[in-house]
Amino acid sequence: MTEVIDLAKRLMAAPSITPATGPVFDVLEAMLVPLGFEITRFTRGEGEEGSPEAPVENLFAIRRGPEGSKHFAFAGHLDVVPPGGGWTSEPFAPEQRGELLYGRGAVDMKGSIACMVDAVASVPADAGTISFIVTGDEEGPALLGTRALIDFMREAGHQPDLCLVGEPTSVNRLGDMMKIGRRGSVNIWLEVQGTQGHVAYPHLADNPIPKLVAMLAELDALVLDEGTDWFQPSNLEITDLEVGNPAHNVIPEAAKARISIRFNDCHSGASLSEQVAAIAQKHGGSALPIISGEPFLTPPGEFSDIIAAAVKAETGLDPEPSTTGGTSDARFLRALCPVIEFGLCNATMHKRDEAVAIHDLSTLSRIYARIVRAALERK
Amino acid sequence: MTEVIDLAKRLMAAPSITPATGPVFDVLEAMLVPLGFEITRFTRGEGEEGSPEAPVENLFAIRRGPEGSKHFAFAGHLDVVPPGGGWTSEPFAPEQRGELLYGRGAVDMKGSIACMVDAVASVPADAGTISFIVTGDEEGPALLGTRALIDFMREAGHQPDLCLVGEPTSVNRLGDMMKIGRRGSVNIWLEVQGTQGHVAYPHLADNPIPKLVAMLAELDALVLDEGTDWFQPSNLEITDLEVGNPAHNVIPEAAKARISIRFNDCHSGASLSEQVAAIAQKHGGSALPIISGEPFLTPPGEFSDIIAAAVKAETGLDPEPSTTGGTSDARFLRALCPVIEFGLCNATMHKRDEAVAIHDLSTLSRIYARIVRAALERK
Ligand SMILES: [Zn+2]
Ligand SMILES: [Zn+2]
Repeated sequence: MTEVIDLAKRLMAAPSITPATGPVFDVLEAMLVPLGFEITRFTRGEGEEGSPEAPVENLFAIRRGPEGSKHFAFAGHLDVVPPGGGWTSEPFAPEQRGELLYGRGAVDMKGSIACMVDAVASVPADAGTISFIVTGDEEGPALLGTRALIDFMREAGHQPDLCLVGEPTSVNRLGDMMKIGRRGSVNIWLEVQGTQGHVAYPHLADNPIPKLVAMLAELDALVLDEGTDWFQPSNLEITDLEVGNPAHNVIPEAAKARISIRFNDCHSGASLSEQVAAIAQKHGGSALPIISGEPFLTPPGEFSDIIAAAVKAETGLDPEPSTTGGTSDARFLRALCPVIEFGLCNATMHKRDEAVAIHDLSTLSRIYARIVRAALERK
Repeated sequence: MTEVIDLAKRLMAAPSITPATGPVFDVLEAMLVPLGFEITRFTRGEGEEGSPEAPVENLFAIRRGPEGSKHFAFAGHLDVVPPGGGWTSEPFAPEQRGELLYGRGAVDMKGSIACMVDAVASVPADAGTISFIVTGDEEGPALLGTRALIDFMREAGHQPDLCLVGEPTSVNRLGDMMKIGRRGSVNIWLEVQGTQGHVAYPHLADNPIPKLVAMLAELDALVLDEGTDWFQPSNLEITDLEVGNPAHNVIPEAAKARISIRFNDCHSGASLSEQVAAIAQKHGGSALPIISGEPFLTPPGEFSDIIAAAVKAETGLDPEPSTTGGTSDARFLRALCPVIEFGLCNATMHKRDEAVAIHDLSTLSRIYARIVRAALERK
């Protein structure tokens, strides 16, 4: 039990505000090498600090099992969101107070990565192939992180059979929820061009705002779907309106809006973009989509059963297979193999005084160990 | 014919960008005193230059006719809009080129005021009472100008029977249009408050934008009226939308819009404000109106007949009695007595190289003289 806390503290003591490089990866490498892992680290991005192209470090670690054995992958990130102010103790000086260990990354997700390492230490090397897919860019633009790791794995011929992402999916108690999927996300910028003029002479102008209003009313009334067995209904929110006309007597030249759609696997980013563009055009406007992520789903079955059994054995709980919430790197990893997310309690993630229950660290380590063994023993 | 051009040039040579004070009023006073007018000048406003409360000069001039005679008033303004750049000659150095006299205020409305003075010079003092109601704040906020003059006249017991405003109402040829009324104007700020939240968790937020969109769709579909014998239908334009939410993943807290209504005498600013507020409230929002002006109408009859006959005699045209266009100080003067606007061609008003046809100045002077005589001869 002491071991996993030490691993967590060592990772949390290395500042790694997104995008992360260097020291925190040195710490992880130093943990994995003694366990027999072969490490590949590479940095992507040559932009300035603070730019979306700022350097990002990625780490792939593999311990090969016997020829023909299964390959199980853990995935996660070592970068963290900025701590902000008002912490009781230093955010990058992990401190145990009572039953809790405080520090940025405690649950999201250096704590989980410590549990993965601790779990693997208890699995014999001949049980099968185990890998770690760890990025320093999950909390940022996520352009140079997990996607680059997937490219690397494909080129090197590393093909896991199952992948577990250590995001903090538990809500009230460790083990109460896993994520078997996530919705996709697309933001669409809408615009209507008109002709500027004076309000006293509207026949000489062409007001773009009523067209935008009619477009938005139609978009707001859309029923995208009724939801599926595993997903809630897709949802469209209008998130911004902009004209910027300070002149009370002037009919403006253009009107803009932005919408955000969180969508299930009835749709793709492209299909929704086309549907919205058709409505925009009908009202004399245009639509510019930026797709942040496609939905993913690993339908309940063998993999979720393995996780549920491990959770049940250690906690007595039946984890709910959920698809709610925001996006994660699982949306990229799903291209490799079935992916499920399961990890610590998320109540304090991204917040001041982020903390993990010390007891949860040892429990999660045992759950992960059960999952790895069961996954590698599959026929 | 030389005389009226000289009067116009003298007024135009005095720079008087709104709000106007001093020299341009000295010029007018120097013209009216020899004609037997008694002058009252006063300045209102103690704010800094450039503020809405900046000092504004006003001039009231009266030449009393015999006891019991009629009182005819000319009204107008000596301030002008800023000239802007690109003029062929200096905007405040009036210059005759060919058949045109160029300079800021040529048609709006120093040229008209020159015609009024020239016309009055030809009317015998015993024909009746004549007054000039001239402000230096018509092109600006109009808070301290004609309204202050009306207050002064009421206190001093000056009550005209008819008032002619010299705004440039002619369109293609001098005499083709007079304004027997103007629409009212109200701007209304609309707002819906909601609850901010994350687009992935819309049930925890309350998006104000769909409510604003539904409110605006209802407002845009309103048929305020079908127009009247003398007014076109009232018109509502949505002139601005504002949310100002840079975060793609955030449902905003509030959404705002602004509308502008130009309305006929089926409504008042207050009745429309109430109607819009009721619709705003129905959609969970609020409405803040600012009424810029109430509509006015001097229905066709004796006064418009006098003007039409004078125009016909001098130009052969039948002036169209119109109520189109923006607002003018006639909206305030209508509280005193019947008011009609008639003046020069408006093609170059507020533009670069504003100019008046020299021939029009002498024609308008004769038209104004006919109007004054006929108005004072009324039973
Ligand atoms: Zn995370
Ligand atoms: Zn004017």
